[in-house]
Amino acid sequence: MRGVVMVAPGDVRVEDRPDPVIQEPTDAIIEVAAACVCGSDLWPYRGVDDADHTPMGHEYVGTVVEIGGAVENVKVGDFVVGSFFASDNTCDICRAGYQSRCVHAEPMGAIGTQAQFARIPLADGTLVATPGRPAADLIPSLLAASDVLGTGWFAAVAAEVGPGKTVVVVGDGAVGLSGVLAAKELGAERIIAMSRHEDRQALAREFGATDIVAERGHDGVAVVRELTGGLGAHCVIEAVGTQESMMQAVRSTRPGGHVGYVGVSHDVELPGLELFFSAVHLHGGPAPVRRFLPHLIELIWNRTIDPGKVFDLTLPLERAAEAYRAMDERTATKVLLTL
Amino acid sequence: MRGVVMVAPGDVRVEDRPDPVIQEPTDAIIEVAAACVCGSDLWPYRGVDDADHTPMGHEYVGTVVEIGGAVENVKVGDFVVGSFFASDNTCDICRAGYQSRCVHAEPMGAIGTQAQFARIPLADGTLVATPGRPAADLIPSLLAASDVLGTGWFAAVAAEVGPGKTVVVVGDGAVGLSGVLAAKELGAERIIAMSRHEDRQALAREFGATDIVAERGHDGVAVVRELTGGLGAHCVIEAVGTQESMMQAVRSTRPGGHVGYVGVSHDVELPGLELFFSAVHLHGGPAPVRRFLPHLIELIWNRTIDPGKVFDLTLPLERAAEAYRAMDERTATKVLLTL
Repeated sequence: MRGVVMVAPGDVRVEDRPDPVIQEPTDAIIEVAAACVCGSDLWPYRGVDDADHTPMGHEYVGTVVEIGGAVENVKVGDFVVGSFFASDNTCDICRAGYQSRCVHAEPMGAIGTQAQFARIPLADGTLVATPGRPAADLIPSLLAASDVLGTGWFAAVAAEVGPGKTVVVVGDGAVGLSGVLAAKELGAERIIAMSRHEDRQALAREFGATDIVAERGHDGVAVVRELTGGLGAHCVIEAVGTQESMMQAVRSTRPGGHVGYVGVSHDVELPGLELFFSAVHLHGGPAPVRRFLPHLIELIWNRTIDPGKVFDLTLPLERAAEAYRAMDERTATKVLLTL
Repeated sequence: MRGVVMVAPGDVRVEDRPDPVIQEPTDAIIEVAAACVCGSDLWPYRGVDDADHTPMGHEYVGTVVEIGGAVENVKVGDFVVGSFFASDNTCDICRAGYQSRCVHAEPMGAIGTQAQFARIPLADGTLVATPGRPAADLIPSLLAASDVLGTGWFAAVAAEVGPGKTVVVVGDGAVGLSGVLAAKELGAERIIAMSRHEDRQALAREFGATDIVAERGHDGVAVVRELTGGLGAHCVIEAVGTQESMMQAVRSTRPGGHVGYVGVSHDVELPGLELFFSAVHLHGGPAPVRRFLPHLIELIWNRTIDPGKVFDLTLPLERAAEAYRAMDERTATKVLLTL
């Protein structure tokens, strides 16, 4: 099969890779219908994380073409959505809603779903079948559910977004924009999107943002405080993962408020004393997307939400190198790869 | 009046200080019935924080002897309990339960309650009257409610302690021990107290601890993991405030679990990436003791709880220097000062 491989940082190629096979009776093989490039794929692309002939990709939707002997919840022919960690969905951690930290979790990034086929471990726990074969225009939204929407949604839930709440979203990438959409669906009264890019501001407004703040860091915090009667927001979604964005999130939150952070923290050190006196709630981590998939698929299927709009560029798999470049150079927010 | 003054780090004296007077119509003056020395008083005592002829003390119970013209909720003669921040109890932050971060908060430590009398700002919001004149043996418990019990209780609530939960308590000082008591009252199924001191272990058991772990740091975490099926605890109370204790708390918590931290963080830096992948909830800060005071006073008045047992040394105010020394040298867990 054809699949994306990062030979070295910055060097993305589409190569022939071995077809996946069932390795455990709990595995399934899917034919990938669409995949995409994640903001986190840029860490190895830019050399911050290692890359050495690494298969890439952890977002996927597709059709089950083979199942292991122990698989019961999905069958050949099902159209399915999974997320970036395979999980059994039965252990204590999964049942508490933290499938991304399942005791048997397997990172899909190690398998590489930017490919024609993919092996899905723990298929019964990992995959959720759609009610039928999706219309073509639903594919981008279902693919968004696989990662960015599920992650933005988790951030909103972690930030305890709800009716009557003022929500700040730090980060205007696909996850931040999905966080705006989630905040709107969860009933937030006011949604302040922090963004300096006009096209992303427009999509943020379309997804439900009521206010746009272009300032960052200290100035951004000052504007948020001004907009919230000097107190800070009830809920803040952090979707970047840098020291500046984390501190901007904490400082934009009122005492007793909630920060939901989903940007993978790189070189972040939280100062204990400032965090202590902030009196905020802090929760985040790798999003347990699986917890939200059934609900998100339903909202997409009913056309209540259209999160696929975060994809502003679509390319065939063979042009993956262009997709990475567009993400790296920020000429695209999020690139969908067709197969 | 007589009051405790820290002339310089390590130099505690009882001196004549001016009698307090009503400065604002929202003030009350109380005659202090009992005060005590706090673990946090040891930071200036040891020179980590500054001290220069500083009036000391922020824990207090006593009788109202004078009120300003705007005070309505307490009257002269009431026996009252307050906490270490004066708060209006009416602003948005107070109404959300974060009175320690009230928009008009005033730290009682700046006033100094280790004294015969004390001015209480925002008396209506700050003070809670007991149902009557307390029996002498209830005074220590009411005084504990003023700080250590309220703080331990907040930590347990922040850690989302409840029925069926396994709780770890890091720190065996008066706050940690109060956290054990709170966890028991809040219905925890299993309470693991981390303590190396026999007398504190005994009180932890009396307060409801089901297990004692004497190991610390990496070894302590390993024992907690072993006791919790490899997963970590649902809830962890952190009541120390050092880098080691914070990391011990985070690492003792299962993914999706809750850390409630109330040890005032000194030189703590939380590593972002580890915190991210821990997937824990983190909440804490200066405890909004006022939120819990009415309930705690009721539990004490009904003799449901006896948190006053954390006081293992009682001295007259004039011997405050000895009290500080005993706390510093750990010959006492918590010292009550009589007046």
